[in-house]
Parts: sequence; structure tokens; C-alpha cells
Amino acid sequence: MATPKKTVITTTAPRKVGITELVLRDAHQSLLATRMSTEDLMGACADIDAAGYWSVECWGGATYDSCIRFLNEDPWVRLRTFRRLMPNAQLQMLLRGQNLLGYRHYQDEVVDRFVKKSADNGMDIFRVFDAMNDPRNLQHAMAAVKAAGKHAQGTICYTISPVHTTEGYVKLAGQLIDMGADSICLKDMAALLKPQPAYDIVRAIKEVYGDTVVSVHCHSTTGVTQASLLKAVEAGADVLDTSISAMSLGPGHNPTESVVEMLEGTAYVAELNSDRLRAISAHFKKIRPKYAEFESKTLVDTGIFESQIPGGMLSNMESQLKSMDAADKVEAVMAEVPVVRKAAGYPPLVTPSSQIVGTQAVFNVMFGKYARMTGEFADIMLGYYGASPAPRDAAVVQLAKTSSAKQPIDVRPADLLPPEWSTLATEAGKLAGFDGSEEDVLTYAMFPQVAEKFFSSRAAGPKSVAKELAAAPPVAATAALAEETLAISYEGKTTTFRVKPLA
Amino acid sequence: MATPKKTVITTTAPRKVGITELVLRDAHQSLLATRMSTEDLMGACADIDAAGYWSVECWGGATYDSCIRFLNEDPWVRLRTFRRLMPNAQLQMLLRGQNLLGYRHYQDEVVDRFVKKSADNGMDIFRVFDAMNDPRNLQHAMAAVKAAGKHAQGTICYTISPVHTTEGYVKLAGQLIDMGADSICLKDMAALLKPQPAYDIVRAIKEVYGDTVVSVHCHSTTGVTQASLLKAVEAGADVLDTSISAMSLGPGHNPTESVVEMLEGTAYVAELNSDRLRAISAHFKKIRPKYAEFESKTLVDTGIFESQIPGGMLSNMESQLKSMDAADKVEAVMAEVPVVRKAAGYPPLVTPSSQIVGTQAVFNVMFGKYARMTGEFADIMLGYYGASPAPRDAAVVQLAKTSSAKQPIDVRPADLLPPEWSTLATEAGKLAGFDGSEEDVLTYAMFPQVAEKFFSSRAAGPKSVAKELAAAPPVAATAALAEETLAISYEGKTTTFRVKPLA
Repeated sequence: MATPKKTVITTTAPRKVGITELVLRDAHQSLLATRMSTEDLMGACADIDAAGYWSVECWGGATYDSCIRFLNEDPWVRLRTFRRLMPNAQLQMLLRGQNLLGYRHYQDEVVDRFVKKSADNGMDIFRVFDAMNDPRNLQHAMAAVKAAGKHAQGTICYTISPVHTTEGYVKLAGQLIDMGADSICLKDMAALLKPQPAYDIVRAIKEVYGDTVVSVHCHSTTGVTQASLLKAVEAGADVLDTSISAMSLGPGHNPTESVVEMLEGTAYVAELNSDRLRAISAHFKKIRPKYAEFESKTLVDTGIFESQIPGGMLSNMESQLKSMDAADKVEAVMAEVPVVRKAAGYPPLVTPSSQIVGTQAVFNVMFGKYARMTGEFADIMLGYYGASPAPRDAAVVQLAKTSSAKQPIDVRPADLLPPEWSTLATEAGKLAGFDGSEEDVLTYAMFPQVAEKFFSSRAAGPKSVAKELAAAPPVAATAALAEETLAISYEGKTTTFRVKPLA
Repeated sequence: MATPKKTVITTTAPRKVGITELVLRDAHQSLLATRMSTEDLMGACADIDAAGYWSVECWGGATYDSCIRFLNEDPWVRLRTFRRLMPNAQLQMLLRGQNLLGYRHYQDEVVDRFVKKSADNGMDIFRVFDAMNDPRNLQHAMAAVKAAGKHAQGTICYTISPVHTTEGYVKLAGQLIDMGADSICLKDMAALLKPQPAYDIVRAIKEVYGDTVVSVHCHSTTGVTQASLLKAVEAGADVLDTSISAMSLGPGHNPTESVVEMLEGTAYVAELNSDRLRAISAHFKKIRPKYAEFESKTLVDTGIFESQIPGGMLSNMESQLKSMDAADKVEAVMAEVPVVRKAAGYPPLVTPSSQIVGTQAVFNVMFGKYARMTGEFADIMLGYYGASPAPRDAAVVQLAKTSSAKQPIDVRPADLLPPEWSTLATEAGKLAGFDGSEEDVLTYAMFPQVAEKFFSSRAAGPKSVAKELAAAPPVAATAALAEETLAISYEGKTTTFRVKPLA
């Protein structure tokens, strides 16, 4: 029997890989519909602060909206609470570029003031992205972060299409670095990033911009990306995004402890305090069942590689079709989505482009190709969301012009916006419960209707939705929505309801 | 801005990696306490047969025991059913070496007859392992497989200890090859195999025994092993074990579809038919909820790296302690397990060694160090389960001798067994319901008490333990649902409705 060769022992110290902990933001956004209350998050903060993370994502994304819409919480109080409880950690937020945390473009002064206030209240690292990957939609927010003296992380939204290439992503990284990015994030919101492209893209970025810190953010929905994180590290990635094991997997993220363990024996190491990790996980293991009503049912879904349709988008389209008595059209719509996406110039499918493309696909199947066009889809076709990765279909652009009575633009969308801050401040000032702060004006700017309701109910204090789904959400004004027949899953059974907004 | 180097395009065809599908055996053993009925497995067989798998694990392990103990099914009927429904697939089973599918050593003639009958009934590939990694406990079963003209897969149980090294595993691989192994399986039943050791061990085996097919079997409990499978392939692994996504993750295995997708763009490819995979997954997505009461609660658990205690073993110890009114001793017992394991010479912790070591740890904490010793632990200390990976603690061996009034052995345990087949056949022949077949004698040999009960009730036919799921309730049958206030997302906006079942 031959003797095997000895394994070569590396004598140099392993390269340290940073970890960004996602449990306070993206984990519960992805797993529990962003419903976790500040109170339930606080108990883990001391351990998170001391665990040795590179950064702690804890704010932004959908949490701001969720705070005021569902939890009667002031998101700025949440941020200050985190700052107080985690004095040592680098706090990180997700910012939708020129959209801030809302769903439209804001004029530059609003962006400036939002970023400044976020910094003032304790934010350290701003991860800035745009759903279209149009750098012009990031540049003002990035500059605002730099002006506030904070860390600007420029983000590449990863997607797959005939026009998306490693070279294209590297070019975008260069544009972000040119606008002052302190680091680059490769953001894989749909768990599409496979090991080989993860390796190729990170390696190419590091070869060209070697001293730039590269973060890799993957969801775990497809069950592929734990391996992608390892290959990204082999290619030179500096920071990986993970979530503590008790709040991991499914449409969430790869488990923090597993990523730490994964690196053992390699030329890389993630130095986190395992006692702290155990304590953090124990905390969330206790808390998570309180939010069982909001749990995503997805365990693993590889269908997205073929359909390009993220899970959330699929269930949304299914509801739309059911409400139109056309549940049998799901297959046809799924086949139509890539066609519509191609016509729109292959945008990444992420909020809001996923909803816009999905709804148009439904309309195409139900009413004929572009026989009806949503205003949002016309806007995408005409450049009002920014440049598209590939040229748009000229015939569909023509239909969009007719349908919307708007002209195509090729400037940065926000350049068309008139100053709006003083108007917003004046309008906010008229609302009952407005506290006079710039933070409140920002809340109003991003969510005008919800803000009005929130300001008036704020004094009642936070209302957790944990364990009390039936009683929790206060009644909203919903006059714009018509009566609908909807199929609703409840305790594992699907039932058809006729639903009607409360007058 | 510098231009990145072009990615090198490989012009050679990617190396094909085989996949062993586990859904018919280990997946439901790990996730649903081995409770799935043949009837519920059958619906996927045509698709499994045609999907292009290297092999289909469908029998052995705990399924035989479960068939007769819980499902009133004849395991031989199950095997013949699989053979009939999957005429093209290579059927594979897990065999515990000299223990067959039972919990003691059997005399060689029983082993011969079991293997012969399994082959006669349709088995192609026998994965043979021993909990102690003692090759002498595998050699007779391996020879029996070769004598039956079937594929003998020699198995290395992977574990971590101060005495387990890459070199040691390679040596064991050589011993298995010397006894005629057609392939080698690196079996990681506790999800302990991290990417670097996966790479090192597979690579070392391939360097020494290059033309030997290497299979890698990992569980997913620790959330680490998807990456380990990729590194194993990079090191030369030929076959990976996976389970269809609808029956994956947690204490089960990495999802088949995810492993296929993971390889895209690499120098390796797993060529499976994606339509078939979708159909298999759809089948089990429908079936799995019927077994919800047997679901493992583990999502991901990295604690095992520290405690060495697999999830199943931990819950077993917790029950033992509770029954002794000593639930507060869990921490003490967890600390004692590695101590007891060391005294026993670092056996891998897998059935039955995990239970034996765990129970002795409980006894040590409750009654004092080795103040009481189980018969099984004495047997391990005295060599009655085979050789241990490291020398055993001499003082504890002495106590075992005293406690059990037995002498240590260093021969192959089965060498001490007298011929037993004719006795077994005679005893089985006296049981009500015995059908006169050699298969029934084997059932009696392995599970004497359970066999007696099963033979007498067999005529009643299979008794599924699945809960029949209520069909989606018709509108009229929803009276049990109360009126609720729900927040519903529709066209990107979330609105609160009061919903009420249609009367």
C-alpha cells in the first residue's frame, strides 16, 4: 500500500476575513416579514457588540417602513437604541440610493439630510445600492455619506442575463470606487450567485482594485451560496455577510457559526467569539417562535435559476392572478416574465423592478401584449428609474410613450426633481403628532400616509406584533383598493375570502 | 480604470460527477424518523429511475427496523417494489457490516445469507460501514457482496479526534480496497466534515488510489457541508450524496438541485434531468407535511463541533436525564461525553457508539465516575465492538472487567460467535405468521421481538403513520376560522383588511 503524500502545512498566519452580522436587519426582513420589534432585538445587542464582527447591519432596508407601519415604533429611536447598546460595533445600514428607504426618487437635498441625520444618530457604514445598477442613482447618496465622514459602501446588485458579465461588474465597481466608495459590496439578493461566478467576479475586482475591501452578501434561498462564500474568500473577498444560526437559511442567509467553522483549516479565518455567538443564537432561538405567523415557508428553492422569479415575486403574482380568477395562468406568466424583463433591458429583479416586471407580465398574459401598461412599467421603459443594463425594446418604448403620454429621458432621474424639502417640512408640520424634528420630516417624506397615522399614534408607544397577529395591526385607510376575492393561507389551509377595505 | 484580465475559458469538457439520491432512505430517516411508507415513496420512483443518478439509496439503515416496527410493512416487499419501479437505477443500501441492520454482531453465515438475499431481491450497491471503523467488522460483509457479484462500497466513518488524521483515513481506504472494495465512501454522518479536511482526505485517497471511485456522504446539520462537497469534487471525488430539495437540509442532506447548480461554470458537472428533479421534489413537497409530527426541529446546529454530541444523541441524553429528575445536569453530561469517549479510545459517535458513550456519561454524572457501568460500555471497553481508534484507558478497562465479569478480547468479535443460522431458523419457524422464507428468518434474526409481533399482524397489510391532509376546505367548511384583521401586500402596497370566511 503506497504512502500518501503529506499534506503541506502552511506556516503563514491565515488571512482574517471579516463578518457582517445581519440578524438585526436583513435576517428578520427575509424570514419574518421585517416584523421583529426593537425590544426583541435589544437582548442580543451586548453580545453582538462584543463578538468581534466587522460590522453589524441593523437599520435601513424595509425596517424603517415596518417600524412605522406595523410596530408603532420610531425608527430613529431604534437606531439610537442600537447605537447606545452597541458602542463598539460598526453599525451598518442598507440604503436604496436616490430612493433612500422609500419607493420613489427624492431630490438631492432630501438625500443629503437623510444621510446626515442617519450619521448624526449613529450610523457608521452606508451600503448604497440601486435596483437598476445605474451609478447615477448612487452617486449623490455616496457623496452625502463621504460628506458626513462615514463609510460609503458602493453596491453591485448581482443578477444573471445575457448582458451581465464579470467585466461589466468590474466596470461598475470601478465607477463606484471613482465616486469614493470605501468598499464594494457584491449583493446577491436572490441567491443566484454560484461559486464559480462568485470566484470570478471577486477575483477580477481584486485584481484591478486590489486594496479595495470587498464584501459579499448572499441569500441562502437556492441552497448554493454557502459554497459561493468560500469561493469568494478564496478569490480575495474581505468580508462576508451572515446571520446567526437561529435566524438563518431559507430565504435568509448562511449561518454565521457555519461560515466561521467552514474556514477552519483553510488559509482564512473569521475570528469571532464563540461564546458570544452561542448567546446571540440562544436569544433568537427563544424569540423567533413568537413571530411564527410571519415565517416564510421557503426552505430551499432552485426554481429561480430557471424562471428568474424570486420567491416573493412569485407569490405576489399568484395572488394577482387569483384575484383575477386566473390562477391557471401562472405558467404562462412565468414564461412571460423573462420576455418582459428582456424588453426592459434586463434589469435585476429586485424591489421595485421585480414587482413592476411581474405585474406587467400578468397584464400581458391577461389582456394581450402591452395592451395595458402600468404606469410604473412605462416609467421603467422611458428611463424614469434610470438606465437599463441593455437597450430597451424600441417598439415597447413607443407603446410606453403613448400609454403614459410621457417622453423618454436619459438624464439622471433625480435631476428632473424640483427642490422639495421645504414643501415636505411644511406639510409634515401640519400633521398631528409631528415632533418638529428633521427626522420626522424625513419619515413624512418617505412614507407620507403611514407617517400621518404613525405621528398621531406614536404617543401610545411600540406595539409588538409578536404572538398577537389577530389583534395587532391597527386599521388603515384603504379606500383606493377595491373589494377582492383572495385566497389566503391560514394555519396551513388555503381558503377563499372576499376581502374589502374597511371604509 | 484598468481592464480586468479575461477569465480563462476551459476548452476541455467538464468532468462528470455522479449523484447518489438519498430521498428514499437517509433523507426521511434523518428528517422524519424513518417513518415514510412505501406507498408514499413509490410515486417518485419513475422520475428517480429516469433522472440520471449514479445510484439511488433506498434500503437499509433504519428502514428495515422501521418497516416492521412502525409501518407493518415487509421490508423485502419494499425492496422488490423499488426494484420493479426502478428497473434502470443502481439501487443502493446502507449495511452496518457485521451488525447487518440490527444492533449486535451476527455470525458469518447470517451475514452471507442476508447479503445474498438482498442481492437476489434486487440490491446493486452495498455501502458497508462499521461504527468503530474496524476493518475486521466489514471484511465478511464485503466478501459476501463480492461473492454475490455486486458492488461493494467500503466506508470510512468520518470523525474528529486527536488520533484521527488524513493519513489514518487513507490507510483505512487502503484496507477497504485490499478487501475488494469497488468504491470508497467517506461518510460524514454528523456533518463534521469541513471543506479543508474534505479536500485533504479525498485528495490523498485519489493520489494513492487514483482509479478508485470516491463517494462523499455528508449531512447538512452544521450548515457547513455544501462547501465541503464542492471542495471534495475539486479534490477528485467522483460521486456526491444529496437529497431532493423538498426533503433536504437540517439534519438531512444538501439539496440535489443545489449541488447540481453549484457546479455550473466549474470544471465539473452533474448531469441530471431537471424536469425529473422538479417532479421528484413536487412529489415530496406534497407528501412531507403528512409526516409533520415526526419532523426534526433542528435547522442548523454548529454546537456539535465543540461538544462532539450529535443532535439525536443530545435529545436522547436529555430524555434520560429528565426521567431521572436531573434535567439540570445536561451541561455536566455534555462535558463528560468527550471524557468518556477518550477513555473508550475515541470511537466515532454514531449508532450504536453514540448511545453507549452518552448513556455512560449520564451514569458518570449521576452516580460518580464509572460507579455504575452499562453492559454495552463494558463491551466497548473490552473489545466486543471491535478495535478502538486509540488505546483505551487501562484503569477503565479494569473496571469494565470487574463490572462485567468478562475478559478483554482482541480478535474479531464475530469470531467468537458459534453458528446460529439453524437455531434462528428453527425459532423463527415456530412463530405465528412466519412465511417459511429465508427473508423471514433474517427478519427474526435481526429483530426477534419485533419480528414476532410483525409476523402475526402482517396479513393486515401496511399501516401508514402519515396523517391524511385535509383537502383544501370548501368555502362552506370554514366556519372554524374567525374573522381576522390581516395585513395583505398587493401591488407593492401593504394594506390592512378585515377578512371573514364566506358564509
